[in-house]
Amino acid sequence: MPLAEVDTPALIVDLDAFEGNLRRLAQALPKDGRVKLRPHAKTHKSPDIARRQMALGAVGVCCQKVAEAEALVRGGVDDILVSNQVVGPTKLRRLAALAREARLGVCVDDAGNVAALDAAAAEAAVTFRILVEIDVGAKRCGVEPGEPAARLAEAVARSKHLRFGGLQVYHGSAQHIRDFTERRTAIQRAGEMAGSTRDLIRRRGIECPIVTGAGTGSFRFEIETGVWDELQCGSYIFMDADYGRNLNADGETKAEFEHSLFVWATVMSRPNEERAVVDAGHKAYSIDSGLPTLPDFPDATLDRAADEHGRVILKRPTNALRIGDKIRLIPGHCDPTVNLHDWYVGVRKGKVEALWPIAARGALT
Amino acid sequence: MPLAEVDTPALIVDLDAFEGNLRRLAQALPKDGRVKLRPHAKTHKSPDIARRQMALGAVGVCCQKVAEAEALVRGGVDDILVSNQVVGPTKLRRLAALAREARLGVCVDDAGNVAALDAAAAEAAVTFRILVEIDVGAKRCGVEPGEPAARLAEAVARSKHLRFGGLQVYHGSAQHIRDFTERRTAIQRAGEMAGSTRDLIRRRGIECPIVTGAGTGSFRFEIETGVWDELQCGSYIFMDADYGRNLNADGETKAEFEHSLFVWATVMSRPNEERAVVDAGHKAYSIDSGLPTLPDFPDATLDRAADEHGRVILKRPTNALRIGDKIRLIPGHCDPTVNLHDWYVGVRKGKVEALWPIAARGALT
Repeated sequence: MPLAEVDTPALIVDLDAFEGNLRRLAQALPKDGRVKLRPHAKTHKSPDIARRQMALGAVGVCCQKVAEAEALVRGGVDDILVSNQVVGPTKLRRLAALAREARLGVCVDDAGNVAALDAAAAEAAVTFRILVEIDVGAKRCGVEPGEPAARLAEAVARSKHLRFGGLQVYHGSAQHIRDFTERRTAIQRAGEMAGSTRDLIRRRGIECPIVTGAGTGSFRFEIETGVWDELQCGSYIFMDADYGRNLNADGETKAEFEHSLFVWATVMSRPNEERAVVDAGHKAYSIDSGLPTLPDFPDATLDRAADEHGRVILKRPTNALRIGDKIRLIPGHCDPTVNLHDWYVGVRKGKVEALWPIAARGALT
Repeated sequence: MPLAEVDTPALIVDLDAFEGNLRRLAQALPKDGRVKLRPHAKTHKSPDIARRQMALGAVGVCCQKVAEAEALVRGGVDDILVSNQVVGPTKLRRLAALAREARLGVCVDDAGNVAALDAAAAEAAVTFRILVEIDVGAKRCGVEPGEPAARLAEAVARSKHLRFGGLQVYHGSAQHIRDFTERRTAIQRAGEMAGSTRDLIRRRGIECPIVTGAGTGSFRFEIETGVWDELQCGSYIFMDADYGRNLNADGETKAEFEHSLFVWATVMSRPNEERAVVDAGHKAYSIDSGLPTLPDFPDATLDRAADEHGRVILKRPTNALRIGDKIRLIPGHCDPTVNLHDWYVGVRKGKVEALWPIAARGALT
C-alpha cells in the first residue's frame, strides 16, 4: 500500500530514519562496553520496538507504569526497569506477579514504600531489584542525594525480599535546556551528586551495582562524567520537534538523530489563500512541548490546534495544500503523541511495510 | 466497590453532578420548543451518554469524525450530525455506508467537497443532509457568510443526492472569552452574520431548515439571538477547569454546571513538605487549556506536569496527601482528556455504580 493511501490522521514511522537512529545510538556508546543502553519504552510502548532495541545490544528497557511492563512482558520483553515509584497494594501485587516472568526492577524514594515492596515480594515469593531514585535537580520524585539516599539504600539492603540495584538518576528538566554548555553543566552537577552518593553507599558496606538514567537530550554528557553505567534514552528513536530545538556545541540545531515519527494528516479545508486546515488536532498529537512543525512546507506554520483541527498559516500561496492533500507533521513531543494512537504505520520509500500495535497505549496504571 | 479502591489514574464521573448537568441544560431551553438540543458527542465519545442525552429530549448528537459516528451508530444512536468537513474517498465511502443505518448530516465549506459528497451518495444510493459551515470569527473552517455561503448552498441544492439542511455556525474561539459582555457581543455578531446569510439563501428560493451550533460557554447568547434552532453544547455534562474560568454577568466565576469529570490520582512521592507528586500526567489529562486543578485541596496547586507525573506544590503542610492517598483532579479541558481513557468509572456517593466504555476513544479518522 502506498503511503498516499493511508487514511488520516495516522502515526507514521519512517523506517529508514528509525533504524538509522537505533544504530546511531548503539554506536555512540563507549567501545569498552562500560556503559550499557536500557532504552525507555515509555516513548514507544511497543514490544516490537523494544525487541529491535535489544537486538542491537540494549540490556533491557525501562518503563514508567506497571501496565506498560505487563504489555512489554506479554510481547516477549524479559528485562524491565520500572524507572518510577509504584504505590498501592493492587499495583504491588501486579508487579510481584510480573517478577515471576521477567527480570524486574523498580525505583523507590520512600522508606514506607520500601517496606510495602518487601511485603509484596514476600507474599509472592519473589525478589525485587530496587533502585533508589535521587533528585538531582528536576525537583519531581526522588530522595535527596547523600545521606538521605544512603539511609534508603540501607533500608533496601536490610529488606529480606529486596535487592539493592543501585541509583536511578534522571535529570528530566535538563534534557531541554537549549544551550549546550548549560545543559552539560546541569548533567555534570547531577553526576557529582550521583557519584558522591554512590561512594557514600559503598562506604557503608553496601554494593551499588549501577547508576542508571540519562535521556536523548543529554546522554553524551552522562557518558562523559563516567558516573552512569546505563542510559535510558527514549526519544532518540523518533526525535520530536522539541528535541530538535536543542543547540549543539556550535550553537546550531543540528540534531544527531533524524525525525522518524510523523502524524499523517489531510488538508480538510482551505478557506482562503493564507489558511489551510488539517484534520489532526489535540487528539492526534500532544502540544505540551509546542505545536507540530511541517517539514515539507517551510513557508507554512501550524499556528493553532483544536481538538480535531490544526490551522496552518501560509506565508505565500502554494499549489500544494489543496483539499485532500496529505502532509506530514512532526509532533512537538513524541511520548504523549504516541499514546494517542493504536498503531504505528511503518513506511519505507513511500510504501507501508509494517503495522506495529502500540501495545501499551493507555497503559496508565 | 468503593471509589477508594479504584486504582489510578482513572477517569471518574460523579453521577449526581453529571445527571444534574444533563437536566439543567434540558431545562434551560426555551419552553416553546423552538430551540432543540443536539449535544456534541466529541466530548464524551460514548453511546451510553448519548442515549441519556436523547432520553432527556436531545434530537440527536453531533460528532467530528466518521469513526466517532461509526462508534455511536454501533451503540444505538440513530441521528448524528458530523459537524465537520469529511474529505477523501475512503471516509466518504464509510460515511455513505453509515447513512443507510442512521439519519446522517455532514458539513461542507467547499464546492469540490460538495461534488465528492454527491458522487459518494450516488454510488451508495443514499442521500446526505448537508449543512454549509460559515466562519463567524473562529477563523478555522467555514466559508465566508453571505454571498459565498449562498453560492455553496445553491451548489448543494442543485446536487441530486444531497439535501440542503441549513447552516453550521459555531464560534469556537468565543466559548472561552472570559468577559461576559465580550463573549455575548461575539455571539451577537455571529448571529447577525448567520441570520443575514440564512435570509439571503431563502431569497434565492432555497429552504434553510435550521441554523445549528453554539457551545457550553455561550449557548444562552445563541438562544437570545433567536437565530439558532439547534444547540451543540458538549462540555456542559462534565465542565472542565477552563470553562469554570468564564465570568458571568456579575463578573464572577459561578458556573451554571457542576464539575462532574475527574481524574483520580494517587500521591506516589512526597519528597518534602512543600511537594507531592501524583501518578497522573500528560497521558492521563490534556493540558492544552491549562493544568488540572485540585478541588479538594485549596492550598495545593498542580504546577507542573510530565508524561506520567503531576507535581503538586503545597502552600502549607498537610496531613493529607501522604503517599498512597488518592485525590481528584479537574482536567483543564474535558474532550482531549476523555480521549486518553478507555472507561468512565461512574461513581455515586463514594461507590462505583457504572462502567461505560469510551467507545470512540482514538476514533481519529
